[in-house]
Amino acid sequence: MLVLSSPSGAGKTTISRALLQRDPNLTLSISATTRPMRPGEVDGKDYFFVDEAKFKAMIEGGEFLEHAFVFGHHYGTPRGPVEAALAAGTDVLFDIDWQGTQQLADDQKLGKDLVSVFILPPSTAELEKRLHTRAQDSEEVVRQRMAKAADEMSHYAEYDYIIVNRNVEESVASVDAILLAERLKRERQIGLSGFVAGLRGNP
Amino acid sequence: MLVLSSPSGAGKTTISRALLQRDPNLTLSISATTRPMRPGEVDGKDYFFVDEAKFKAMIEGGEFLEHAFVFGHHYGTPRGPVEAALAAGTDVLFDIDWQGTQQLADDQKLGKDLVSVFILPPSTAELEKRLHTRAQDSEEVVRQRMAKAADEMSHYAEYDYIIVNRNVEESVASVDAILLAERLKRERQIGLSGFVAGLRGNP
Repeated sequence: MLVLSSPSGAGKTTISRALLQRDPNLTLSISATTRPMRPGEVDGKDYFFVDEAKFKAMIEGGEFLEHAFVFGHHYGTPRGPVEAALAAGTDVLFDIDWQGTQQLADDQKLGKDLVSVFILPPSTAELEKRLHTRAQDSEEVVRQRMAKAADEMSHYAEYDYIIVNRNVEESVASVDAILLAERLKRERQIGLSGFVAGLRGNP
Repeated sequence: MLVLSSPSGAGKTTISRALLQRDPNLTLSISATTRPMRPGEVDGKDYFFVDEAKFKAMIEGGEFLEHAFVFGHHYGTPRGPVEAALAAGTDVLFDIDWQGTQQLADDQKLGKDLVSVFILPPSTAELEKRLHTRAQDSEEVVRQRMAKAADEMSHYAEYDYIIVNRNVEESVASVDAILLAERLKRERQIGLSGFVAGLRGNP
């Protein structure tokens, strides 16, 4: 399980899309949310858009791996699709914030196999610029986002890896390298002891 | 500090050479040895070739980070060049066996910053084939090498990462990914807390 977190405006969504296009063994965890759909968004692709009552029923049914309340809306990661993907041997990418990451890391069953990456913007100026070019957001929302960005960044030290997103191609290559390296870790390589026994002449 | 270990014949030397050519921030630790120079080898490039007396004086002077006795000859890693390279911010590649790796990992000062990679041959048949094509070695030496290879492989579980060398280009890319990922680990990124404080508006 690979978590990418960042303040909004640091470029995380662009990086996630590029990763998913390049890596057939990686699937995106799609969150459920109560926030309204934005122009261009697709239900079941960007988010599962659900109402308040449905979201609360899902919480009570234990259907979330993690959930949080941000800017007046609920966001949560449905457990079923993640467990199915992992059982099929696929890596799962999570585009969630620090609260969700902590809840995932605390999960008894899945927390051990979590790799977390925090993406930082190259500068405050760049972050402000990116937050202002999202035309559909009001000034008030931009101000909220800047405050939330500062709050989000205060949690960078809880992550395994840190990438400063100076250049999207370079950042995607960095996440690729992290994924490959993590797959090469001894404890993630299944069947290794049998393979080595065979090499040593004790099959 | 990056350690590459493998049974001889698994392709480690080819991989090391390719890494050193591609990565200007990586320098090779050159071992000292009492074994005779082989045709084509260069003193100070392949090894520092020293006699028994000199090697023992170096041991007594505390000049080795690690040393071991293998096939009747001494091998050791001189401490000075490694410390100088690390102080200059260069990563250091070690082409040493499991005994040397353990000694390096136990080093109070340097052991914490060690990343170890074990390279396995794709099959026993391939390993035997590669050991037989080194024309200058006698059958007896090949037999010794096969025994040593089995012994060396019994220590794979002490390494952080495992690469099965099916293809040299792929294995080099794997080590590259490990190096990049390890450099992106939060605890290896110097000056990060000041950078994040600046981003958050508290320079």
